[in-house]
Amino acid sequence: MNDILIICGTNRKDSISKKIALIYQSLLEELGQSTQLIDLLELPNDFAFSALYENSGKNTQFNTYRTLMLEAQKFVFVVPEYNGSFPGVLKTFIDGLKFPGTFTDKKCALVGVSSGVQGAGLALSHLTDIFNYCGTYVLPVKPKLALIDDHFQNGVITNKLYLELLQIQAAKLIAF
Amino acid sequence: MNDILIICGTNRKDSISKKIALIYQSLLEELGQSTQLIDLLELPNDFAFSALYENSGKNTQFNTYRTLMLEAQKFVFVVPEYNGSFPGVLKTFIDGLKFPGTFTDKKCALVGVSSGVQGAGLALSHLTDIFNYCGTYVLPVKPKLALIDDHFQNGVITNKLYLELLQIQAAKLIAF
Amino acid sequence: MNDILIICGTNRKDSISKKIALIYQSLLEELGQSTQLIDLLELPNDFAFSALYENSGKNTQFNTYRTLMLEAQKFVFVVPEYNGSFPGVLKTFIDGLKFPGTFTDKKCALVGVSSGVQGAGLALSHLTDIFNYCGTYVLPVKPKLALIDDHFQNGVITNKLYLELLQIQAAKLIAF
Amino acid sequence: MNDILIICGTNRKDSISKKIALIYQSLLEELGQSTQLIDLLELPNDFAFSALYENSGKNTQFNTYRTLMLEAQKFVFVVPEYNGSFPGVLKTFIDGLKFPGTFTDKKCALVGVSSGVQGAGLALSHLTDIFNYCGTYVLPVKPKLALIDDHFQNGVITNKLYLELLQIQAAKLIAF
Repeated sequence: MNDILIICGTNRKDSISKKIALIYQSLLEELGQSTQLIDLLELPNDFAFSALYENSGKNTQFNTYRTLMLEAQKFVFVVPEYNGSFPGVLKTFIDGLKFPGTFTDKKCALVGVSSGVQGAGLALSHLTDIFNYCGTYVLPVKPKLALIDDHFQNGVITNKLYLELLQIQAAKLIAF
Repeated sequence: MNDILIICGTNRKDSISKKIALIYQSLLEELGQSTQLIDLLELPNDFAFSALYENSGKNTQFNTYRTLMLEAQKFVFVVPEYNGSFPGVLKTFIDGLKFPGTFTDKKCALVGVSSGVQGAGLALSHLTDIFNYCGTYVLPVKPKLALIDDHFQNGVITNKLYLELLQIQAAKLIAF
Repeated sequence: MNDILIICGTNRKDSISKKIALIYQSLLEELGQSTQLIDLLELPNDFAFSALYENSGKNTQFNTYRTLMLEAQKFVFVVPEYNGSFPGVLKTFIDGLKFPGTFTDKKCALVGVSSGVQGAGLALSHLTDIFNYCGTYVLPVKPKLALIDDHFQNGVITNKLYLELLQIQAAKLIAF
Repeated sequence: MNDILIICGTNRKDSISKKIALIYQSLLEELGQSTQLIDLLELPNDFAFSALYENSGKNTQFNTYRTLMLEAQKFVFVVPEYNGSFPGVLKTFIDGLKFPGTFTDKKCALVGVSSGVQGAGLALSHLTDIFNYCGTYVLPVKPKLALIDDHFQNGVITNKLYLELLQIQAAKLIAF
């Protein structure tokens, strides 16, 4: 599979991160890159128990996503800031994936989203630690879309710099 | 409530972290400190969906733990290393708690556990960021119990230094 | 010594951090707290070589600051963001201090300053790791004074929220 | 210049990091890769004052190293753990380099060295934040040579795993 896999890093309904993920998808498609999107909202609701540890690899519904992650070579994670870091559900998703194999020697891009002023900066730092631990190359450019409610309206990113940063990152990920 | 609340930071069955948490509990009790213990294994299996966001505060079973966390003044988190950081389920638990109020101006102690050589060092750094963000004072001494399988046998911590570090930390948390 | 020691975390001439440090000093004094201020600009210019390692404790001029740090019980570090973290010179200063003894079981407050949008957030996270390693309690509230050129003019912090955060932090440090 | 530039991340005399840097150099040379080595010990002793800020680019002796860094495309940083992070002098060196230009879109490998058990794990995490901020791609494999005094004797790395990790990393950096 050569699609770039975009992961919406929260299971919150109607999340802005999901909308940003969809915009990112169209940015990649405009550059001629095929994509797929995983929304953590679609995961089986009890996956933290039914798809980890002794149940690892045994949850059929979860395995759909597990296989997508295993087969992809490049990822984009769109990550809202919850309590000063990434959503726990995103890390739980990672904890349920095949190790090693899912992440080793692959490549990823990280995008932070926050209603506050930090743009999930610490979340992206923490995730970089995690992905590097898993053997994944992380693109150094990591857009931090702070104060998102001021810069995303009616489905459109109104902050020109934000949009440019995503376009630059998307092009770099394709070339990486 | 003046009990110190100990949180086993994983929902894995028969985890070593749970056993360390129980030892920590007896260390505190020996020092005359009353305690309670939360095991993430007991959480409702779908709490990542049924107790967060629009369901925040509405899951009766989860609320038992939410109230315990809200009323406690001091916490101990026993944290295994998963994929180079803390378990996602621990952060999801945090994401389901009342904010602000659960953590502001409270105090916590962090213990790392790993089968590998790092002792969850990065996990404890990430959690420190999170708790500081939430307004919680974090004890600077953070025992990192690396290579735990060599140092914990038959329910006993066989590494004398590890035990001393936990005792020092427990005493500091009581005095904090 | 019961003075709170304020450290201007850069050796740049006419730094905004120095000016913020002076404002912090007056905030503490207004609360009845005596203070002293260390400006890294005053350090012997070759201290990275003449006051570390085999020369540790032997540089008379550096020792003035080393003794101040050793005797203080509480610190405020005003930290500009350089290359995504704290200034190297601040860490070199720390590397030249007596260990252990300077930091163990003491207390500190961290303030971040940046011309960019992050307010030295990662710098403060890195420093928290360092001070916790050294056994120092770090106040969880860590003001991040981003876009400082817009919010500091003619020697006055014009952003009301910034000033309030510093006042809250100063009061907490005194009470800590 | 296509040499890989190896930076010994301390100015301590007779440092183990320097010896590890020399071993790394021979590993790269054995793989047919030309190299150069910068030892921070050779920097002008007052460079933290005479080569930064208003003096940036004006210190002839420092500029030799500044130019080497500017022209290289790939770096190896051998980083001892000081006070729970990297040596301040290494960050000061980075603060004296041309920005942007020195690091943007380049590639680097990080090696941690410690007498203690952590292998400079947090130092490498902090440096990853810094290099990513500067636009540099960081190799995810980051050997952490903990308890180095037990594993490096008479100029030889006696820990087979440590040597293998360095060889793997060196090959990956060449291919990156």
